[in-house]
Amino acid sequence: MVNPMARSPIRTPSLPYTQLSFTSTRGTACGVQHLIQVDITAAGMHLAVLLLASALPLTTLALDNGLMRTPPMGWLAWERFRCDIDCDNDPKNCISENLFIDMADRLFKDGWKELGYVYVNIDDCWASMERDKQGRLQADPKRFPGGILKLSRYMHDRGLKLGIYADMGTHTCGGYPGTPLDKIKIDAQTFADWEVDMLKFDGCYSDVMQQEEGYPLMSMALNATGRPIAYSCSWPAYQGGLPPKVNYTQLGEICNLWRNYGDIQDSWDSVLRIVDWFFENQDILSAAAGPGRWNDPDMLVIGDFGLSIDQSRSQMALWAIMAAPLYMSNDLRTISNEARAILQNKMAISISQDVSGFQGRRIVKEKSGIEVFWRPLSKNTSALVFFSRRTDMPFRYKTSLSRLNYESGSYKVIDVFTDKSVMLKDSTYFVVSVNPTGVVMLYLSAPAKLNPRLFYRGGQRQRSAHDENAFFL
Amino acid sequence: MVNPMARSPIRTPSLPYTQLSFTSTRGTACGVQHLIQVDITAAGMHLAVLLLASALPLTTLALDNGLMRTPPMGWLAWERFRCDIDCDNDPKNCISENLFIDMADRLFKDGWKELGYVYVNIDDCWASMERDKQGRLQADPKRFPGGILKLSRYMHDRGLKLGIYADMGTHTCGGYPGTPLDKIKIDAQTFADWEVDMLKFDGCYSDVMQQEEGYPLMSMALNATGRPIAYSCSWPAYQGGLPPKVNYTQLGEICNLWRNYGDIQDSWDSVLRIVDWFFENQDILSAAAGPGRWNDPDMLVIGDFGLSIDQSRSQMALWAIMAAPLYMSNDLRTISNEARAILQNKMAISISQDVSGFQGRRIVKEKSGIEVFWRPLSKNTSALVFFSRRTDMPFRYKTSLSRLNYESGSYKVIDVFTDKSVMLKDSTYFVVSVNPTGVVMLYLSAPAKLNPRLFYRGGQRQRSAHDENAFFL
Repeated sequence: MVNPMARSPIRTPSLPYTQLSFTSTRGTACGVQHLIQVDITAAGMHLAVLLLASALPLTTLALDNGLMRTPPMGWLAWERFRCDIDCDNDPKNCISENLFIDMADRLFKDGWKELGYVYVNIDDCWASMERDKQGRLQADPKRFPGGILKLSRYMHDRGLKLGIYADMGTHTCGGYPGTPLDKIKIDAQTFADWEVDMLKFDGCYSDVMQQEEGYPLMSMALNATGRPIAYSCSWPAYQGGLPPKVNYTQLGEICNLWRNYGDIQDSWDSVLRIVDWFFENQDILSAAAGPGRWNDPDMLVIGDFGLSIDQSRSQMALWAIMAAPLYMSNDLRTISNEARAILQNKMAISISQDVSGFQGRRIVKEKSGIEVFWRPLSKNTSALVFFSRRTDMPFRYKTSLSRLNYESGSYKVIDVFTDKSVMLKDSTYFVVSVNPTGVVMLYLSAPAKLNPRLFYRGGQRQRSAHDENAFFL
Repeated sequence: MVNPMARSPIRTPSLPYTQLSFTSTRGTACGVQHLIQVDITAAGMHLAVLLLASALPLTTLALDNGLMRTPPMGWLAWERFRCDIDCDNDPKNCISENLFIDMADRLFKDGWKELGYVYVNIDDCWASMERDKQGRLQADPKRFPGGILKLSRYMHDRGLKLGIYADMGTHTCGGYPGTPLDKIKIDAQTFADWEVDMLKFDGCYSDVMQQEEGYPLMSMALNATGRPIAYSCSWPAYQGGLPPKVNYTQLGEICNLWRNYGDIQDSWDSVLRIVDWFFENQDILSAAAGPGRWNDPDMLVIGDFGLSIDQSRSQMALWAIMAAPLYMSNDLRTISNEARAILQNKMAISISQDVSGFQGRRIVKEKSGIEVFWRPLSKNTSALVFFSRRTDMPFRYKTSLSRLNYESGSYKVIDVFTDKSVMLKDSTYFVVSVNPTGVVMLYLSAPAKLNPRLFYRGGQRQRSAHDENAFFL
């Protein structure tokens, strides 16, 4: 049987990282004219946009940085370390160069980098309260005595990348200096001078009109530096996340990823709220996602304090189904073996990083509280997640691939978290035992003899009765 | 320094178990006259009560079983295994004698019994749908082929105890035969004949008046059997848990423990709801608790699917502070080492099992989301729990024993979950780092030189400023 997964069940770990390198091939981003057109439409021909746009070299107007062809992976400070600047009393956890060096060391030494976790991202509260005499942002001199360039070099020496944070407004959310419209160009250039690899651009302390100008302007300004800098836009989260206020076509043209929804917290309630919102709006959101352009449901809180092991597997599985960026926000110095194993699960990562870049969907909602999610993957493979919203005991869910709309044929099925595998005919009923707030995640590959068109028929099909010939995974 | 805890930091593990044995000394429960008086008051001189009462031997009318002088510990099937009766498809998890034998084996072999976890409690769905020809309840013959007596003997052979479940109504909550008023005496005798050690008496399918008769009647009927059978009453949970509907004086006279509030589920939300309710009503509830008479906030769900490690420590700590029964409902065959370590924490158990039997209280609610709980223990010792409702990052809470109303003096302080210890003066400021949804639990013993009156002053005292001389635990 020809089975691509059987030959190479796990993607070469270095692939996603290689594809994220600075000199990678250009993507399918649109050209200059398109961006200007969208920009004018959105901003209502606002004068400032045109003036600033015209000041930039024409060749750098579109987001054409070739970055993040698969969802980015790495570490981001915010959820776990917030705005802790108390280095006197809390030196190990305060926002300082030591924290980012510690995390870089862990990514480099504990097997994270090889799996694709290469970004080390600074969030808010890194900056000095004052710009320098040239009007440039500068890092807090006490907490970042070596400056940001030192950190970039530290990352690059280890095959890692550095992300930084700024805010499209007068102040950052934490009250540090913002990047209003007239500072966008200089700040983009500063980040490039610091050899930064990614910018998260938040939206506190700005209004709708300013954001409409600022987010595209920063995209152009980053491109204009000549340095490939991945661009994360918080813009849609400030617009409510949905059309008509959010223009996802435009976002895909100017940003590599974008936050659609509120901040994640270290709690299962928070994860559930995010999951609900993203899958309730999956028709809109899935259409917006693809290589180089990702919806971002926010950080992984696996390894922190609020999720059980089952809930941690659920976040990992559903983020992989969503083709979501995988930014951990945890303490890699003290993370438990159980949490590490989930975050380092090679098959879950390989599903997340599938080159097709499709964002998966919820395809079944049962009254029992079981939901089924599905993501089509390259080479005729796919992933299924069975998720339980119950809070009582493991639920034995019986179904068949045929009931889940798969085409006729035999599929090799691997349980992502147990590594067990089995051959399943589409018509064979099987039972998955799904733990409360937990998942069963399956990777499926269809044999070559299967009809080469997309094996998932799409849409919902009703079956009146269950075949009693159940198969136990 | 004379320090009882320093000499014997952990109670002799066998003590709680020994105290719970069948032939133990009689407690301070009230006499016949008192119970009859209360009963008449409550039931409004209902004829049936007096008739049934008079039919019982006079010497057994009061709950005078000498049991549960410390909060009972063990295992209870409900939360984890519910009403799973599908032994054909789920033989390892269905409600059957095999399940209780499996759990007994684990309690006996894995160190639980020595720590005090001795009850193995059947819950709903054990019975046959039909009573036998003599009108007695009988176990489902397929799932309990050896009958309940076989299970009791199995427990007793291993130094364990068996609990069973019935319902003060026409049916159990799961739809099995109930124990209406006219069946109370025969069912009590059946349980005694089966050598059962505890009865949980639920309240589905009965009305207020029937409960008002039935719960005291079952107490008398159990005593009348001559077998010490601990008695768990779900009655107050069906009355809303609070006076004037609930008469806690009466409950303490007729029941060993009682469910005040709704069922726990396998989720942190559920644990939090229970914690909130019990501590919001702590004035009422603490007054009702004491040796032989316990408020029951329901089972420990540690080791299941919904709680993180920090949340598991929080449940263990707060249940110990509450002097709550410690009935686990989990799968002891597959429990993780982390969950086992929390449930088997000797110091937390020793706090739970303190012979004084005081139910602890919440003494501080900070705007930061930190709350402090306190339980006075015997021999001038006490326990403190610092709990965080935050969902962001560990919070560094600074306080002193003096601020927590402790008397002047030096205290030996042991961190229950890390085993670190330190001497602390009441005036010394210290910082505890409390994880989101987690706890820091301290055991404190005061030296003999301390004023022998209660070392905790009670009430709330305000301090205007913090001493900067912080001490780090």
